[in-house]
Amino acid sequence: MRPRNLLYAQSGGVTAVINATAAAVIAAARRSRRIGKIFGARNGILGALREELHDTSRLQSGELKALAWTPGGVFGSCRVKLKDPEQDRATYERLLQVFAAHDIGYFLYNGGNDSADTALKIARFAKQSGYPLVCVAIPKTVDNDLEGTDSCPGFGSVAKYIATSVREAALDVQAMAETSTKVFVIEVMGRHTGWIAAAAGLAGNGRDEAPHLILFPERPFAEEAFFEAVKSTVARLGHCVVVVSEGLRDGNGRFLAETGHKDAFGHAQLGGAGQVIAELVRGRLGLKVHWALPDYLQRSARHLASRTDLEQARAVGEAAVRFALAGMNGQMPGIERLSDRPYRWRIVPVPLEKVANREKKLPAAFLRRDGFGISAKARAYLAPLIEGEAYPPFRDGLPDYRSFRLPLARKKLKAWEEA
Amino acid sequence: MRPRNLLYAQSGGVTAVINATAAAVIAAARRSRRIGKIFGARNGILGALREELHDTSRLQSGELKALAWTPGGVFGSCRVKLKDPEQDRATYERLLQVFAAHDIGYFLYNGGNDSADTALKIARFAKQSGYPLVCVAIPKTVDNDLEGTDSCPGFGSVAKYIATSVREAALDVQAMAETSTKVFVIEVMGRHTGWIAAAAGLAGNGRDEAPHLILFPERPFAEEAFFEAVKSTVARLGHCVVVVSEGLRDGNGRFLAETGHKDAFGHAQLGGAGQVIAELVRGRLGLKVHWALPDYLQRSARHLASRTDLEQARAVGEAAVRFALAGMNGQMPGIERLSDRPYRWRIVPVPLEKVANREKKLPAAFLRRDGFGISAKARAYLAPLIEGEAYPPFRDGLPDYRSFRLPLARKKLKAWEEA
Repeated sequence: MRPRNLLYAQSGGVTAVINATAAAVIAAARRSRRIGKIFGARNGILGALREELHDTSRLQSGELKALAWTPGGVFGSCRVKLKDPEQDRATYERLLQVFAAHDIGYFLYNGGNDSADTALKIARFAKQSGYPLVCVAIPKTVDNDLEGTDSCPGFGSVAKYIATSVREAALDVQAMAETSTKVFVIEVMGRHTGWIAAAAGLAGNGRDEAPHLILFPERPFAEEAFFEAVKSTVARLGHCVVVVSEGLRDGNGRFLAETGHKDAFGHAQLGGAGQVIAELVRGRLGLKVHWALPDYLQRSARHLASRTDLEQARAVGEAAVRFALAGMNGQMPGIERLSDRPYRWRIVPVPLEKVANREKKLPAAFLRRDGFGISAKARAYLAPLIEGEAYPPFRDGLPDYRSFRLPLARKKLKAWEEA
Repeated sequence: MRPRNLLYAQSGGVTAVINATAAAVIAAARRSRRIGKIFGARNGILGALREELHDTSRLQSGELKALAWTPGGVFGSCRVKLKDPEQDRATYERLLQVFAAHDIGYFLYNGGNDSADTALKIARFAKQSGYPLVCVAIPKTVDNDLEGTDSCPGFGSVAKYIATSVREAALDVQAMAETSTKVFVIEVMGRHTGWIAAAAGLAGNGRDEAPHLILFPERPFAEEAFFEAVKSTVARLGHCVVVVSEGLRDGNGRFLAETGHKDAFGHAQLGGAGQVIAELVRGRLGLKVHWALPDYLQRSARHLASRTDLEQARAVGEAAVRFALAGMNGQMPGIERLSDRPYRWRIVPVPLEKVANREKKLPAAFLRRDGFGISAKARAYLAPLIEGEAYPPFRDGLPDYRSFRLPLARKKLKAWEEA
């Protein structure tokens, strides 16, 4: 069989370890004689449509190692969801023209449930069109909300960062509480699901260890019960640490981040659920409050990556190349958990139909009975995912992250006319 | 000479490494036959007044090691500034009563410029009263604004954390900028001085590397120049990373955090300068903005401590005990820099008069000519302070921080009547 080229693209929010997946894809693909060139699409699917394909052949093996420890997305990513081929046939045809022009036989799409959906559509369209393509999705999302895989690369590192940060900040608050901040609020990512919020629960054990209260997006904000819990925690311990998911909603399903907070000019505030909770606590209980918003810091914190997460990020990249070579069109390498303690897992193929556009919520059994913490079940699930450290090398006191200037393959087609 | 007891107290905001100072004080004091018991005041000076003195004798050497890698403040700290003895003689008399009741011959006060002032007043009052006491201040502040010392323990670790976080988040923003966030704003600590903001500048080099713009409290916010700089950075690079000091002020000297931002109920917002800048950028330039507020995460991030900072935190603790034994009343061990590269430093005695109530601003020569970045001079000063890593041990995927339950010495006096 003559070698064909491989195109890898990143999609959606990047993570601390998605470049480890990219590096694993490149390394694995280089080992196969059936793969020719290895391209990375610039800014995700946009680069595929625009025929902006980074040629990775100049990346030396030392650089490939450095790529694996550098956060962000080396080729760039994007938040673009393709329409159905029925609604927008031209886009899919363009994709196949680009693939044909560069003899792309393997398309690996690294993203979340939207990307799985896109990969599935491309797989089907190519098949219908008679274009020979193996399309494989690679899981990635800090939100950990993909079906078909026990965990998602990117999540374990955020989980470790947030649990560590909560443990650290709580020690600070505890030391100062008598004359300073009594209630500390930290807002974590997770617009629709509480996986990251739940991970914060690993910072402590029992009701006297921080975080004392977690507000999950899966539970409508129970204002009175929450204030009572804050009050009694402060009365008992002198302080209270609260973790709030950015996706927290009120009883009417409205995001708390959107409830009645405007600046002096009447514009909706950029502040989120954490700020709303902080202000409510201060206003209602009259307690000194501080709040933190780690925002992108949490998903880019490669300096505190989970080794488990990093290994899984690599493993799905390698497996995706194996799947591609095996002709497993429309599949995704998923992580199957074999046991919690010791933690054992393996890679299994998952049909994209089981992943596309679905969202795995935090199971109700993962919440503590009062809804403000995590259960033993949640701990058993979460604990292995943050296991192990994987520090990047440091230089001059800072992580030695690299930037990579990769040339673009020469264009062969006319420019794409974007809608 | 019969042994006398030592009292150590923490003051003001705690840091990632202040417990390393505490551990060094305890270890050094244990080695001297002239020191009997070693107490730690509960919640700083308040514990001294209330006669709440933790007895550290039960701390085993393994625990002392763990204390040195645990952030927060082991005995608790407080934000309390004593009045002058002329205005509030009773408080100082009470202090000496507590000292006498527990035969305190050495008082070590670990804090910033307020604490140096307090230590000086106590030293003088004891002398006037004929109470035999050696009072030594130990430098500590993430703000790095103490006179008499080249750097302040606590600062180097925040500096390393912020520079690392900016470098990481910038890679995230860069990868996503085409279809997502164009301007990322991060607010850092430093109410009066821009040392932490300046440290963020270590994340990159040259005008194309993040952070692209830094807003210092030493420079009034130059709105138009700032917007022009944001616009041109986004035009050139596709994104822009902005670091804002919490203490940024407008041309009239008002904190930006207080300018016209109220919630729906008319209350001043908890959000700070970072949020104001983020909203201004969005409102004026119409660009998608995200902002981060690491808050206490930055000063408690022991997982990313600077080894240099940790060594200095230990060194000032050890030196303080030496100073105490040498009868160096009213002095502080300061850090004198001998050279930048290689970085060499030593401990020198500094009279508290030179430290008390003063504030070391960022020198004008540390700012880049346009005021939005740091100069080569600033780099030469800052770079050594973030050198070296000093990871705490991890257990179950998280830093193995400990809590210490130390007994309080039995009270011998009547309760203190607090004002």
